Amino acid sequence: MRTVIGVMGSGHPLDAASEARARALGRLIAEAGFVLLTGGRAAGVMEACSAGAKEAGGLVVGVLPDTDAASASRHLDVAIRTGMGDARNVINVLSSDVVIALPGGAGTLSEVAHALKAGKPVIVLGWDPGPALRAAGRVLDAASPEEALALAREVLGR
Amino acid sequence: MRTVIGVMGSGHPLDAASEARARALGRLIAEAGFVLLTGGRAAGVMEACSAGAKEAGGLVVGVLPDTDAASASRHLDVAIRTGMGDARNVINVLSSDVVIALPGGAGTLSEVAHALKAGKPVIVLGWDPGPALRAAGRVLDAASPEEALALAREVLGR
Amino acid sequence: MRTVIGVMGSGHPLDAASEARARALGRLIAEAGFVLLTGGRAAGVMEACSAGAKEAGGLVVGVLPDTDAASASRHLDVAIRTGMGDARNVINVLSSDVVIALPGGAGTLSEVAHALKAGKPVIVLGWDPGPALRAAGRVLDAASPEEALALAREVLGR
Amino acid sequence: MRTVIGVMGSGHPLDAASEARARALGRLIAEAGFVLLTGGRAAGVMEACSAGAKEAGGLVVGVLPDTDAASASRHLDVAIRTGMGDARNVINVLSSDVVIALPGGAGTLSEVAHALKAGKPVIVLGWDPGPALRAAGRVLDAASPEEALALAREVLGR
Repeated sequence: MRTVIGVMGSGHPLDAASEARARALGRLIAEAGFVLLTGGRAAGVMEACSAGAKEAGGLVVGVLPDTDAASASRHLDVAIRTGMGDARNVINVLSSDVVIALPGGAGTLSEVAHALKAGKPVIVLGWDPGPALRAAGRVLDAASPEEALALAREVLGR
Repeated sequence: MRTVIGVMGSGHPLDAASEARARALGRLIAEAGFVLLTGGRAAGVMEACSAGAKEAGGLVVGVLPDTDAASASRHLDVAIRTGMGDARNVINVLSSDVVIALPGGAGTLSEVAHALKAGKPVIVLGWDPGPALRAAGRVLDAASPEEALALAREVLGR
Repeated sequence: MRTVIGVMGSGHPLDAASEARARALGRLIAEAGFVLLTGGRAAGVMEACSAGAKEAGGLVVGVLPDTDAASASRHLDVAIRTGMGDARNVINVLSSDVVIALPGGAGTLSEVAHALKAGKPVIVLGWDPGPALRAAGRVLDAASPEEALALAREVLGR
Repeated sequence: MRTVIGVMGSGHPLDAASEARARALGRLIAEAGFVLLTGGRAAGVMEACSAGAKEAGGLVVGVLPDTDAASASRHLDVAIRTGMGDARNVINVLSSDVVIALPGGAGTLSEVAHALKAGKPVIVLGWDPGPALRAAGRVLDAASPEEALALAREVLGR
């Protein structure tokens, strides 16, 4: 079984710097031989990170909220279609051996919370989830995609 | 169809003041004629709030993470058994016309996030979810069960 | 906690006899003091059975596939909104202490299968699920709403 | 995005002929360049089919009922961990572009029903789901793994 790194973050359009950061993170994950898992949509962090992983020849799995793949990023290898709306956020984090969270809205925050609830450390890249989420589990801070990957390796022990 | 107020919060043992507050809130919800919905377990806020609502003759619905009702509060009228673990947190907030959140851990924070994602205002009673969650939707602050119910009525327009 | 009888069946328009049968079943369930649980929509067996239970002053809970209650029967007391599409079929049967299935299509058949998988007997009223489903668990045959309720009582031991 | 063939069937120990058939089917699916998706467990059809696909160098995705991968087949490349019990059966069929069902119990029957509900044809290999399920959608009969794959290609139009 391959090791899966889940990347969560905004589903809204990204500014150029955020887009580049998510893309670089996807590339690093793929180059390190990990599977990238995202929420699967052709939007925001999901799209940029998947594009980066695909550029580097990685395997990309998306877990979609919908019953079909109409909203899917074209960079996915496998589209898991759940038809469960935001309940798929729970699947995203359970299916990830480690979770990296980029800035996002309520959906991303729900994923951070679910990951912590499941006892999984969350690596936050470039933002602060605040004291309430930090008190709910183990949150690690990364300032760059490189540092996020290094922390992920440390958490995974490889 | 009856109006449902969902109360979320810690599933861990409560101190006396927190227990009394959750119980008082349950009583107020029932006295006002609303259905109380919780995560259904015989623990923490779920148990105390359900007990309060039941004392006041209210209707109490619990949405359980398990496939059976072994973990259910004895104060429930109806036990929705989902077998979906924490994915049931999404159901808790979607099924509530308004959500009141008491202090809790990662599970409660996931419910706050899911409620905001679904466009529902969240009334927080006696704690601070922090700037990231506040930026993700409409969060209203209550200092007492009475104020929480008043805000709930305001949100519901009745 | 109150005992819940789940009634499953077609979500398509019913002929007059099927409508009357579903309505009579709802009435009997309510008169016997059980909670009626259905898939919640204002259609087919869900609507007719809920109307019958409501006429008899019963408590009616609907477990909807949607994130909101737009599709809900007006006879529901409580609308559980799952946003999980057909995955809510699993919740329907897990939340029912006994399941009665009227004629239906693929959705109803999935509910029969899930109930049997969960080890719950299924009472089929007026149709034959066939040998494959019968081999998968305990299926009881009823020829009338009265017989279905009598079998339900027997299964429940009350 | 790659095309996914879902294979459903018993999670109980298989006799030698059933084991060989499931394994052969997995091999054929991988050789044809399709992704194999199963319920992911190290048991019955899931295990045998995954082993066959892996022998042929295929990509194998398992959608597990559990929150972790303890029950997973060692032949999976990616373990989707849902924590949703049998509700994951819905994900299995939604995520498959075509579904092939081998003999199984209530779980398999629920998957056949959910696939038909979602408008997906189901190829049954070596058994009869009965008239009720056949009336609920499009069921195609295959007598061998080779015929099942040929029908799958036909359904997929490739």
